[in-house]
Amino acid sequence: MNKLLILSADAETYYGLIREADLQQFEMTATSDIGTARDLVAGCNIALGDPPLLSEVLASADGLEWVQSTWAGVEQLCRPGLRRDYVLTNAKGIFGPQISEYVMTYLFAFERRVFNMRINQLNQHWQPLAYRPAKEITLGIIGLGSIGRDLALTARRFGIRVIGLNRSGKPSEAVEKVYSVDQLAEFLEKPDYVVLTLPATPQTNRLIHADMLKIMKPSAVLINVGRGNSINEADLVCALREGIIGGAVLDVFEKEPLARDSQLWKLANVFITPHTSAISFPADISSIFIENYHRFVRREPLMHVVDFELGY
Amino acid sequence: MNKLLILSADAETYYGLIREADLQQFEMTATSDIGTARDLVAGCNIALGDPPLLSEVLASADGLEWVQSTWAGVEQLCRPGLRRDYVLTNAKGIFGPQISEYVMTYLFAFERRVFNMRINQLNQHWQPLAYRPAKEITLGIIGLGSIGRDLALTARRFGIRVIGLNRSGKPSEAVEKVYSVDQLAEFLEKPDYVVLTLPATPQTNRLIHADMLKIMKPSAVLINVGRGNSINEADLVCALREGIIGGAVLDVFEKEPLARDSQLWKLANVFITPHTSAISFPADISSIFIENYHRFVRREPLMHVVDFELGY
Repeated sequence: MNKLLILSADAETYYGLIREADLQQFEMTATSDIGTARDLVAGCNIALGDPPLLSEVLASADGLEWVQSTWAGVEQLCRPGLRRDYVLTNAKGIFGPQISEYVMTYLFAFERRVFNMRINQLNQHWQPLAYRPAKEITLGIIGLGSIGRDLALTARRFGIRVIGLNRSGKPSEAVEKVYSVDQLAEFLEKPDYVVLTLPATPQTNRLIHADMLKIMKPSAVLINVGRGNSINEADLVCALREGIIGGAVLDVFEKEPLARDSQLWKLANVFITPHTSAISFPADISSIFIENYHRFVRREPLMHVVDFELGY
Repeated sequence: MNKLLILSADAETYYGLIREADLQQFEMTATSDIGTARDLVAGCNIALGDPPLLSEVLASADGLEWVQSTWAGVEQLCRPGLRRDYVLTNAKGIFGPQISEYVMTYLFAFERRVFNMRINQLNQHWQPLAYRPAKEITLGIIGLGSIGRDLALTARRFGIRVIGLNRSGKPSEAVEKVYSVDQLAEFLEKPDYVVLTLPATPQTNRLIHADMLKIMKPSAVLINVGRGNSINEADLVCALREGIIGGAVLDVFEKEPLARDSQLWKLANVFITPHTSAISFPADISSIFIENYHRFVRREPLMHVVDFELGY
C-alpha cells in the first residue's frame, strides 16, 4: 500500500481531485498545517505539496520515496542540509501559457501605453498614442526551459523578433538565436524587452546587476517571472531612478512579500505583481501527480525529476 | 505613363517609400490637402490614400482606374452616390496581429485585473487576485475575415476556447465552431468575451442592441475593434450601467472622436481607446500598393478588391 501525504494551501482541493482518480494500492491524508503534517509524514512514502511547507517536514520523513512539488520552483527543497534520499519531481509544462499571458499583456501594455490611455479616458481625452510595429520589437528571453520556449513561440505569433540565452548557448528552434551565459553582455545590448525565466540556483544569483543593466538599451524593459534572486534589487532601483533602463515588470523579489518600504513600489514605469504571473491550478498539478503515480507503481521513470545539485 | 496621386495624412512617408521601389511607367504626386488633391486628381489614373480624404475628391477623378485604400475599412468610399467606375482595393492581411495584440492585452487585463493590481501597487499592497485558467475562457469572434482568424489562432495558443460567427456559418479551421448570423442569439450565450471584427455595412448596422446584450453572460465583456455602427451605443450604456454585461473595450464608436459628453468615458469596467487598435504602418501599406502596382501594369487581377455592394 502506498501512502500519500498532501501538504498544501489547497490540500482539500487536491484531496478531492485525487480521490476522483480512484488510484490503486493507495491511501492518503491531506492537511495545510505543518504541525499535523510532521506527525503524519513518518508513515507516508509519497508526498504532494507546496515546497515551503514540505521543507519544514522533511526531517521527519524517513520513509519518503517520492515527493511531487505543486510548484515549478523547488529551491526550498534543494537547500544544503535537507535530505535528498528520495525522488523529487516538480510541476513543468503547464506554466508556459500562463507566463506568456503575463509577459505579453505587460509588454503590450508598455508598447501601447495602456495606463496612459486609461488616464486619457478618465479625462475624456481622445488622443492617439503611437506604438511600434511588432516586427521592430526584440524580445530577449533568459532561460529557455519549457516556459521560455512557450513564451518565444507566442511572441513570434505577434511578429516579434525573439532571441534567447541559456547556459550552453545550445540552439533552440523556438528563437532566432541563442547566446550562452558567457555572452550575457553581448546579448543584453539587443532586446527591447528582457525576460527572466530562471530558477533560483547559485548560478542565477544576481545575474542582473549594475554592470549588466548599463548594457541594456535605455528604453529597455526588464521583466522577471522567474525568481527574485536573479536581480540585484538595489542596483535595479538605481538603474530605474537614473533612467539607465526604461522600466520593469516584476512578479518576484529577493524577499516576498515585497517590503512595504521598498523603493520599487512607487518608481515610475515599474509594475509590481504579487508572485501571480503563473499559479498552480490544482487540476493541472493533480494530472501530473496522477500520471506520475501510475509510473511510480509500474516502477517506471517519473516525469520532471529534479536534479538537487542544479536545483531544477 | 501611370500617374499616382497620394492623398493621406502620411503623404510624405508614402512618397518616400514608393520612390524607393523605382516603379516603371510611373509618376506621382503627394499631398495631405483635399483642395490640392482636387486639382491634381483629374490628371491621375491611380490613387493611394485614406478613405475619408479620398471620398472628398472622387467627384473630380474622372480618369481614375484604380484606388488603393490605406485602411481596411472603406465604408466612406462605398457610400451610395459616389462613383464606382474604378477598381477599389483595401489593406488586408496586415492588421490581424495588431488586433490580436490589442484584444489579448485587454482580455488578460480584465482576467488578471491589471488595473486593480496597479492600484494595489500604488498603495504598496501585496494582494494576489484570482484569475481563471485560459482553458475555462470562451472567446466568441463575430466576423471571421483575416483579422478574426488571426485572433482566433492567437487566442488558442494561450489555451482559450474560440468560437466564431459569420454570415453563412461556413466552418473555419481557426475556430471550434462557427455560427451563422441567424444563430446570433444562440451564439451570444456562450462567450466570456465577445469580439466584433466587422466592417461597416448596412448588414452590420446595430447588430448588437438591447435584446442581444441581454443574452450575453452577465460577466461577459464586449470588445469592438471593427466599426462603431455594429453596436447600439445607447443600449450598451444601459446594459453596462445595469450590470446586464460585465464590461466593454471599445476602440470604435458611432461617431468619432467620441463626444466629450458620452456616458461611455466614465462607466466602470469600460476601456476606451481612440481608434488605434490597429494602425496603418506606411511600410506595410506601401508593400501592398507596390505588389498591386506590378499586377496593374501586367493587367493581372489585383489583391484585395472591394465589392462596393458588400462594402468590403
